Amino acid sequence: MDRLIEAIEQKDNPSVVGLDPTPALVPPQVILAQDGFAEPKEEQNGTHGMDWSGETPAAQIVTGFYGFNRAIIDAVKDLVPAVKPQIAMYEAYGSVGFDVYCLTCQYAQSQGLYVLGDIKRGDIGSTAAAYAKHLTGVNSLDGDINGHPWHEDAITVNPYFGTDGMTPFLDAAKQSDGDIFALVRTSNPSSAEIQELELAGGERVYEHVADLVEGWGADSIGKYGYSRLGAVVGATHPEQGRELRARMPHTFFLVPGYGAQGGTAADVAGMFDSSGRGAIVNSSRGIIGAWKRSGEYSESMTSQEALDLVARSARAAAVAMRDDLRKALQS
Amino acid sequence: MDRLIEAIEQKDNPSVVGLDPTPALVPPQVILAQDGFAEPKEEQNGTHGMDWSGETPAAQIVTGFYGFNRAIIDAVKDLVPAVKPQIAMYEAYGSVGFDVYCLTCQYAQSQGLYVLGDIKRGDIGSTAAAYAKHLTGVNSLDGDINGHPWHEDAITVNPYFGTDGMTPFLDAAKQSDGDIFALVRTSNPSSAEIQELELAGGERVYEHVADLVEGWGADSIGKYGYSRLGAVVGATHPEQGRELRARMPHTFFLVPGYGAQGGTAADVAGMFDSSGRGAIVNSSRGIIGAWKRSGEYSESMTSQEALDLVARSARAAAVAMRDDLRKALQS
Repeated sequence: MDRLIEAIEQKDNPSVVGLDPTPALVPPQVILAQDGFAEPKEEQNGTHGMDWSGETPAAQIVTGFYGFNRAIIDAVKDLVPAVKPQIAMYEAYGSVGFDVYCLTCQYAQSQGLYVLGDIKRGDIGSTAAAYAKHLTGVNSLDGDINGHPWHEDAITVNPYFGTDGMTPFLDAAKQSDGDIFALVRTSNPSSAEIQELELAGGERVYEHVADLVEGWGADSIGKYGYSRLGAVVGATHPEQGRELRARMPHTFFLVPGYGAQGGTAADVAGMFDSSGRGAIVNSSRGIIGAWKRSGEYSESMTSQEALDLVARSARAAAVAMRDDLRKALQS
Repeated sequence: MDRLIEAIEQKDNPSVVGLDPTPALVPPQVILAQDGFAEPKEEQNGTHGMDWSGETPAAQIVTGFYGFNRAIIDAVKDLVPAVKPQIAMYEAYGSVGFDVYCLTCQYAQSQGLYVLGDIKRGDIGSTAAAYAKHLTGVNSLDGDINGHPWHEDAITVNPYFGTDGMTPFLDAAKQSDGDIFALVRTSNPSSAEIQELELAGGERVYEHVADLVEGWGADSIGKYGYSRLGAVVGATHPEQGRELRARMPHTFFLVPGYGAQGGTAADVAGMFDSSGRGAIVNSSRGIIGAWKRSGEYSESMTSQEALDLVARSARAAAVAMRDDLRKALQS
């Protein structure tokens, strides 16, 4: 987790921008202009062995996501240490969507950002080993690593399978100087149904998962006292987050749920440690959808004018979030 | 679940072949011949915006998977009702891997097989809605569905998020005449660490999840008494599987862990209902890796000779599994 912690300290900003584009969050002229890809248009509309040939408005949407993401990245790259692309938003579009996801990660890394791939994968050991290639890349038949499509510094994982489902991810994180974040207490309203169940010993399921996560990370603790295995803890559970901070002293938190989902800076303040470290707070819609609340958008804008508004609004929202978090952490 | 049940009855065979290729499970000459794709070679090696251009042994591997899968599908399509491609094995290779996954699903459907995409996705509601496009396809800006890359009849999902993470998948299953399977009791050795935790009320976590799953499916029960929401229950837990069969009368089971993971036909027999319905049993390595145990393989074989051996061995293993299950269900 050292690289992430140092990136946060360099920007003095424990926030991460979620790159979760949807057709509703991207100005339509950006999609219609389809100027996201650097490649020639024939390449963008390549069949990929699938249904995208000919008239391809759906592929055009995800292609537009790339131009949108690049505008956001350029607007915030000097402010924030990290971005968190949500792979589901790209996966919805099939293979071409993954091209856009990977290109987004690659571009963000090239601009000096730490890329947290929000993929929430999890499976039995042999299958988890395949998912762990997100961090390590894939080998040729003679064992050389020669394919590295993903460009992620960290990924999120689901711990429901227990130790043997986690080990391949932990090994991959060590091998790649990367990190992973396991789901512990998610931000969504129904999350209590399983995560807050009371166990026979009196603790809750998420507390038991927290103890497992703290234990799994124990042999990868870095120079700031945090292991390569972080935990996802929703901003919507401030009291539980505060307790988990004490319960998991070597586990860094990824905190979703700030902003659009209702979490405030005061809610997340307790998830940091006494030196102001220990957590990074995500906002997705609050940053990338800020242009919609600006009152400045018009359908008559060109694609470039719309992207400029997206960038300007995202930057202002990222500054406001940074200052909001700084203030809450100082008080 | 009606379509799956009818496919099972038509073949009189409650088994599904897991298409989980790895470099170790595919004869090397099949990969080196790279004759899997129907498209011209330039198209196979397209850059996909990534690292695959030029010398691409890693992309060649996953391209070889397609020829391998097609040989397996052709060999078993008159015997088994369904195949279950494990997406992780393809995802390891990035975008081109998804091309191979989608082509595999498409080919299997074209041969009359029910395709169960083993994707184990799960997230908060807005993100789950994006993953649910696996079943429904994606819309153009004007709302028409015009992109349908995945070619899956059903998918597996992770229920850790609770109701609001499940609802988009349930809606998508209804909309697409498809099915979903939620993880309840997985087959791997460490699965007990979370799934078997004892709750304050005396039941286990997986039993509580089972009750949630049975409830979530209640409004999609089909003509055979099973809902569109099935459960993943490992063959490695025969007693728990038997109890879950009684506890979840309207929930169809996908049973992994037969064969290579140690589950036997006797172990899974209790997961069927009194009319011999209610479950489908998966074998992956036991079928697709059967050629390795045949004693007939030689490195001097041509790619076609190796594929013929793969097909012949897979067919024999699929027949043996079918007969093994039939016998256990009759006794």
